Amino acid sequence: MPDFTDNLKPASPSGPELLAQERRQSDVAVEELSHHLFLDNDFLGRQQRILRILEKDALFTKAKQLNLSRPERYQLGLARAKKLRRLADQHAWDAEDQSMSQYLCDDVSPYMVHYTMFPTTVREQGDDAQRAYWLPKIEAGEVVGCYAQTELGHGSNVRGLECEARWDPKTREFELHSPTLTASKWWNGTMGRTANHCVVVAQLLVPNSAGSTEYVSHGPHPFIVQIRDFKTHKPLDGIAVGDIGPKYGYAPMDNGYMLFDHFRIPHSAMLSNYSRVDPNTCTYSSPANPAVVYGSLTAVRAAIIMHARLVMARAVTIAVRYTSVRRQFSDRDSQSNAPELSVLDYPTVQIRILPLLATAFALHYTGAAMQKLYEGTRAEIDKGDFSKLAVLHAQSSGLKSLCTELAADSIETCRRAMGGHGFGGGSGFIQLNNDYLSKPTVEGDNWMITQQTASYLIRRMAAAVTSKGTPDDELERECRKWLNEEHDRNVSPLLIFDSDEQLVQAFHRRSRESTYRAYVEREVKKRSWNSLLIQLRKVSHAESQSILVTNFYNALQDSSLSTALRRHLQVLFRLFAFYTMDREARDFVKANAVSNEDLDQLPSTIQDLMAQTRPHAVNLVDSWKIPDFLLDSALGRSDGKVYEDLFNRAHRLNPLNDITFNPYYKSDEIIMGQGSDELRKIAAKL
Amino acid sequence: MPDFTDNLKPASPSGPELLAQERRQSDVAVEELSHHLFLDNDFLGRQQRILRILEKDALFTKAKQLNLSRPERYQLGLARAKKLRRLADQHAWDAEDQSMSQYLCDDVSPYMVHYTMFPTTVREQGDDAQRAYWLPKIEAGEVVGCYAQTELGHGSNVRGLECEARWDPKTREFELHSPTLTASKWWNGTMGRTANHCVVVAQLLVPNSAGSTEYVSHGPHPFIVQIRDFKTHKPLDGIAVGDIGPKYGYAPMDNGYMLFDHFRIPHSAMLSNYSRVDPNTCTYSSPANPAVVYGSLTAVRAAIIMHARLVMARAVTIAVRYTSVRRQFSDRDSQSNAPELSVLDYPTVQIRILPLLATAFALHYTGAAMQKLYEGTRAEIDKGDFSKLAVLHAQSSGLKSLCTELAADSIETCRRAMGGHGFGGGSGFIQLNNDYLSKPTVEGDNWMITQQTASYLIRRMAAAVTSKGTPDDELERECRKWLNEEHDRNVSPLLIFDSDEQLVQAFHRRSRESTYRAYVEREVKKRSWNSLLIQLRKVSHAESQSILVTNFYNALQDSSLSTALRRHLQVLFRLFAFYTMDREARDFVKANAVSNEDLDQLPSTIQDLMAQTRPHAVNLVDSWKIPDFLLDSALGRSDGKVYEDLFNRAHRLNPLNDITFNPYYKSDEIIMGQGSDELRKIAAKL
Repeated sequence: MPDFTDNLKPASPSGPELLAQERRQSDVAVEELSHHLFLDNDFLGRQQRILRILEKDALFTKAKQLNLSRPERYQLGLARAKKLRRLADQHAWDAEDQSMSQYLCDDVSPYMVHYTMFPTTVREQGDDAQRAYWLPKIEAGEVVGCYAQTELGHGSNVRGLECEARWDPKTREFELHSPTLTASKWWNGTMGRTANHCVVVAQLLVPNSAGSTEYVSHGPHPFIVQIRDFKTHKPLDGIAVGDIGPKYGYAPMDNGYMLFDHFRIPHSAMLSNYSRVDPNTCTYSSPANPAVVYGSLTAVRAAIIMHARLVMARAVTIAVRYTSVRRQFSDRDSQSNAPELSVLDYPTVQIRILPLLATAFALHYTGAAMQKLYEGTRAEIDKGDFSKLAVLHAQSSGLKSLCTELAADSIETCRRAMGGHGFGGGSGFIQLNNDYLSKPTVEGDNWMITQQTASYLIRRMAAAVTSKGTPDDELERECRKWLNEEHDRNVSPLLIFDSDEQLVQAFHRRSRESTYRAYVEREVKKRSWNSLLIQLRKVSHAESQSILVTNFYNALQDSSLSTALRRHLQVLFRLFAFYTMDREARDFVKANAVSNEDLDQLPSTIQDLMAQTRPHAVNLVDSWKIPDFLLDSALGRSDGKVYEDLFNRAHRLNPLNDITFNPYYKSDEIIMGQGSDELRKIAAKL
Repeated sequence: MPDFTDNLKPASPSGPELLAQERRQSDVAVEELSHHLFLDNDFLGRQQRILRILEKDALFTKAKQLNLSRPERYQLGLARAKKLRRLADQHAWDAEDQSMSQYLCDDVSPYMVHYTMFPTTVREQGDDAQRAYWLPKIEAGEVVGCYAQTELGHGSNVRGLECEARWDPKTREFELHSPTLTASKWWNGTMGRTANHCVVVAQLLVPNSAGSTEYVSHGPHPFIVQIRDFKTHKPLDGIAVGDIGPKYGYAPMDNGYMLFDHFRIPHSAMLSNYSRVDPNTCTYSSPANPAVVYGSLTAVRAAIIMHARLVMARAVTIAVRYTSVRRQFSDRDSQSNAPELSVLDYPTVQIRILPLLATAFALHYTGAAMQKLYEGTRAEIDKGDFSKLAVLHAQSSGLKSLCTELAADSIETCRRAMGGHGFGGGSGFIQLNNDYLSKPTVEGDNWMITQQTASYLIRRMAAAVTSKGTPDDELERECRKWLNEEHDRNVSPLLIFDSDEQLVQAFHRRSRESTYRAYVEREVKKRSWNSLLIQLRKVSHAESQSILVTNFYNALQDSSLSTALRRHLQVLFRLFAFYTMDREARDFVKANAVSNEDLDQLPSTIQDLMAQTRPHAVNLVDSWKIPDFLLDSALGRSDGKVYEDLFNRAHRLNPLNDITFNPYYKSDEIIMGQGSDELRKIAAKL
């Protein structure tokens, strides 16, 4: 309905003018930088191609979806998931195309586990016959599958799972059973409403010997189980399964619960590529080298870091563009009547956003390096040589922990830096934040998995102290070098402002020192593991930061970079390194890595680097090429029409404004003129 | 529907057993501590009385409300707000009772601004006639009001507002007008759908003199304006008003937008207690001392801190109870088959939760001290003496900034410490988190308002350096003392482990030093204000931390405390102080307040204090007496029935489980057996 607001424009200077000016003033070559970031795998071409298809389809329109109820969000998610799969058939999308379509759709898909963990497990854990039987049905979408490991009472400690699979030699079946409430499968995606099959991880119980009634537990094993009827999609008898209810974000995903009541499944249900139960003799044969699993886990973690950097880039894109457009207060030291400053001109806004911009690059180079390293060791892994994988896997735990935490925190930091409008739906931060907040917890709790990294580092340091023969790996070699050349040698602190190499070296020295201290506590003083946990996390983070800084530095040596671009990236590198160092400054003193005097200079150095970055901030975020379709943000629009979009969402797209309410408290009428019907309807939903 | 899950119990030891054991093992006297915390104003009696009424009313049942759509949440919010008001009439609740009912209901009320800012402004800014006319109508709920200051393009910088009120001497009316889109009022609570009146803050434009066509701007002034029809509740002609749409949390609140198209209001609309326009001569007379406003602002901020401490206590209550019940992994150094440990036994979990438990107490004592101080200066303020208020107001800005940030961050920290279940709706954190996240931004952005505190501190330090006559206030006296006795005097670092007094003194010394450094930069080196903003925030936080530590310490001197309880509180005091110190350790070295050697001891001291707190954690949170009704948390239930409640919410209370879906991608049927109807319905909402 047209009204007087149709002709109103925002006060000048307008967002588009301001962003145009930002783009003009910078010599950052956006296309060159984009190309540098997304060299591999035609990421940008793919993004463009899939985007064109999704943008045309009304089902993927996002602006109003925050108004939907949770049950509606699941239904929309299912409808979108189906549509994406049909589009994949229609356009012959490959796996990467399909991932891209889900990334752009930005809904976690109710089919997610059906596409990922479920087929991966069947492929890795199933024997040839099982693969041949199941994979075509899965691919056809006839079998819709999920993966149930975690239970109501048991998460990371897989050995504590309670769900049982008991082999019954008489009927030659396994009996799946949930003996307690805490044995209920819990959190398992795609299981709540969508899947008709499931890989269930249960404690395998097998009679001591054929004919015995004494059972032996062989620990958790995977079984593939039909859980719902193909036709009615109702749970089979003996199974209670459903969705666990609303969560932070993840609204379209049906994370589920499931219990079994003496539910019988055939011998063929046990995935038997490694472990087997002989149906005749009750003999259990045990798995081959489980290190294979670390391979795919490491690949998953590299992917998590590559995803984390896109999440950060997205948050920072919105924050940089909006704070360039948003103006507030004149310079306090200026003449009166000076124009208001862009919010991004304030150092207190810069310090929250620009180091995160630098961090997105840091994550990028480390994610890319990990992927390359993993690909490089693939051949060795396939040959059964896991030595390099061990280092990579240990490092990946700490990096997963630190990087997902950095990304999750960056969203909230950017949001707050945007002031009031950051709290609104037009920020584009609500779904991003709520969905991403699971990442520090899933796939290994962020605090817990740092133990793996620290434990590995301490072992390598212990080996280096003993110093027998040639070092087992690069890490031990570095530890030895540090012990011989730097530790207790009265070396001078590094000159971090003189060369980037010394800056990198400072992070190394500090990480070695941190590992060494933990080694002394654990191995020399024999302190208990649990009493060291806080320190161990710091050990892991010190190493992860050292890796991030090193990979960033190495990437700058890429000879294909133009001098101009390398200069800009160098500023970001230093910003990231100094900012990280400043937050843990005492550590660097203790390691004799940096002098107190130099550390005192960090705040002003950081402020200088931010001032150097400021004029290029918009071009730097533009280079990440996050499409408006994905940003779904009035504040972060690439054209700068911040206020027009906010107003449009409020005035034209808000369904609440279609209803007139009765505001008088003595009446229990809610909608004007409708009596108390509406109240009854709402009350019925409570 | 009964099924086999009805008879299942969680694995033992059960939550109730575990919590009972936690309660038995502690000698913290819950009732004594509760009494100590909630001495004033019969808080606990009131809570109990109102709780009994709300618990009986099905409209206030919370468990399923996360499933509702945003429009439904507003409707529910309005229904609840009406019901609370009717209950207030019925039970003759006073203002504190009504606040308590809203606190327990835990929905931000669509009537909120009608109850707070709207009547306060009419009372403070209206003249006698205006008060006599409006207040009875407001009290009767006939006039439902809101307050519109912030605009789409203008937040904290009130002088930048664009909405105009132009005095027309001919018709003797003001013309309200929004010249641009950015002039749209924005974010204003209760305005979107609920209010029929509004206090509109607009730039007052008055002709130069009677008969002149030249207008002079007198800055922002408040006008009371009818915006909707009493009967139809439709916006009046010339007004566009509505709800701005979904946000982080605050779902039941109709934050609004509003524009005026040459909308005319009578002379009496201008609230004229201070400022007036003479309708005959066009003469503008200006306001009396605006410091009055700081009085109520300071009171509001004390209330914000008292609220923040309850929010923290709530988050910590849930986290402590759940991590006591939740068990995971055995001790790595123990025998195999050792039982799993309570998650709260891990120092990595303690370090996230227990310092926050201590912080809730710190906030409590400072909020209480501020309220007392404000009450104490009330008499002087009423006499027109604002000298003490100035200090209090300056301190309140920094404290508001720090305390709301601590509280907001504590929610997310506690949530993550709870692992997977923290991400679920049964955590009780979703609404708490989303609603509270606005606090660091509203009522003065957290980063921005620290300038007020720092600016004040620097002025007092400058006065102390000049040292003319007797000091103006306590702060200047302390600055002089520091300059004379500690600054550049080569004093020894304080012995923070020897006495709590010295520990407090260390915070003072560090704050003075921090202020002095900023004073030198600004006043001596004449650095620009904006270039110092990051440093100024640190100055403000240093002072706020010093105030928090001091008030906590002072509270321990209360002679009514039993020795046992004082000992427990002392542990919390030290935990808070050392934890805070550890995070900013270099600052304390630079101020010569603490030695490097002592700072190196902080991590192990903190770990010791946490170990001392651990056995009492459940009793300590119990003492805050946050009712289960408010917690709305399966994880934080006082009876420990964590798993039973999580399962009940999933299996019995989740509406998504009432629907059976069609999971096959080739069909666009969403609900099994219903064809493509549902898809059309959902698509229509996009």
